[in-house]
Amino acid sequence: MKSFVYPLRIHIEDTDMTGLVFHANYINFMERARSEWLHQLGYDFKWQQQEGIGFLVHSLTIEYLKPAKLHEEVEVVTELKSHGRANAIFAQYLRLKVDSTKIVCKADIKIVCINQDMKPTPFPESMLLTLRRLKT
Amino acid sequence: MKSFVYPLRIHIEDTDMTGLVFHANYINFMERARSEWLHQLGYDFKWQQQEGIGFLVHSLTIEYLKPAKLHEEVEVVTELKSHGRANAIFAQYLRLKVDSTKIVCKADIKIVCINQDMKPTPFPESMLLTLRRLKT
Amino acid sequence: MKSFVYPLRIHIEDTDMTGLVFHANYINFMERARSEWLHQLGYDFKWQQQEGIGFLVHSLTIEYLKPAKLHEEVEVVTELKSHGRANAIFAQYLRLKVDSTKIVCKADIKIVCINQDMKPTPFPESMLLTLRRLKT
Amino acid sequence: MKSFVYPLRIHIEDTDMTGLVFHANYINFMERARSEWLHQLGYDFKWQQQEGIGFLVHSLTIEYLKPAKLHEEVEVVTELKSHGRANAIFAQYLRLKVDSTKIVCKADIKIVCINQDMKPTPFPESMLLTLRRLKT
Repeated sequence: MKSFVYPLRIHIEDTDMTGLVFHANYINFMERARSEWLHQLGYDFKWQQQEGIGFLVHSLTIEYLKPAKLHEEVEVVTELKSHGRANAIFAQYLRLKVDSTKIVCKADIKIVCINQDMKPTPFPESMLLTLRRLKT
Repeated sequence: MKSFVYPLRIHIEDTDMTGLVFHANYINFMERARSEWLHQLGYDFKWQQQEGIGFLVHSLTIEYLKPAKLHEEVEVVTELKSHGRANAIFAQYLRLKVDSTKIVCKADIKIVCINQDMKPTPFPESMLLTLRRLKT
Repeated sequence: MKSFVYPLRIHIEDTDMTGLVFHANYINFMERARSEWLHQLGYDFKWQQQEGIGFLVHSLTIEYLKPAKLHEEVEVVTELKSHGRANAIFAQYLRLKVDSTKIVCKADIKIVCINQDMKPTPFPESMLLTLRRLKT
Repeated sequence: MKSFVYPLRIHIEDTDMTGLVFHANYINFMERARSEWLHQLGYDFKWQQQEGIGFLVHSLTIEYLKPAKLHEEVEVVTELKSHGRANAIFAQYLRLKVDSTKIVCKADIKIVCINQDMKPTPFPESMLLTLRRLKT
């Protein structure tokens, strides 16, 4: 499973007065998808606490292509683009469920693994193995 | 179906620095559940636009019993408590999926049907019939 | 100072597709005003941590009277309605800055003082004295 | 005034369970600052409606340097980096108010001017003149 698909529906709280999704909210959707993927892979928040680590967003680039509207069903597609010993870049995009060629937005999001002093620290070995396997 | 169950998972964006869900966000969850129920009953936003009406929250009461935490799976249970010709009161509560006796919070939420001048107006007849049927 | 006035402006992120403020967001505004008041009175988050306490919202009632729109300037007015040894009820309302007779919404919000086990615990003595003084 | 400084304080709703500001929320702060600047320059939402135009975020890049914490006072600094006839790139960063050398995050945000069919359209002439003047 080198690609993870996370479905969601657009709710009123996600929209703004333009009738479209407020641009920052797409970044929330992408976070949900990454969290859910890590959860399914066994690297959820409880595991992070046990390992004494956490993941911070280091930087991101996002391009908005076609706005999503209220009650539309969309899918966040997530892939691992690259990784180092202490960071990883996820390529993520949103597409309409009804037509998967319609891309709403796409982003590259770099996360960094930190220790309890908030300093960069290598991913635990088990997770590094998984990242290598996921690398497309 | 006099009761509607809407499942969701707690995401990082829902929490605040206490590690628990920020109190106002539960009200978002309840809105999602009501919207989804109305959608399934055929009274979604497109239908509202065709009828020239909308639904506004008039007032609500909420009691917080047991905070939900990151990544917990919860269910919003929604019932119609009562209704008039132009308003309806929904009784809604959140429970843990893993133990449905654990109630996170419960609310009574009154909505009012409005026309395009934002004045109260009766629900369309078809919806009134549905509301009567749903009344517990 | 038995009443605290907190000004704010409505931003795009606060609105939803109706062009009005999303109903749950008013509750965020009220939280900001309470926090700011407690901060000015000397009972901010740092103080809470030193005392080993925290404040949780126990319950609230809110009535929506007149929606606020994008870029409107509003004021949250906060008063202490009543208090016990471990809880307090704040009466809060939002009014338009341009016409203070225009009430957007009003709420009663009950908070409870908790210890680090999340059990109710009396307010520290200094804060109790302040609450008595603020009681309208 | 080639640079616009917008002050704000971090609220509980802005934080997540890490105790820091949730990463997407910084993008909300930047939107508030851009809106406020455009408002002060005379290009607010009412003006946009009269001109039959709107501004959409086309793309953005953000780098997170130092997280902001609850109740910290920060400033969003906004400059116009470049512009075309129908788009503009704003360089924005957040700094701590208490020490303006401490940069929280910095972003380049490209907006596009659209007409009522959501197609790119040139900025109105008066606004183009202003953009030229603001260009650093």
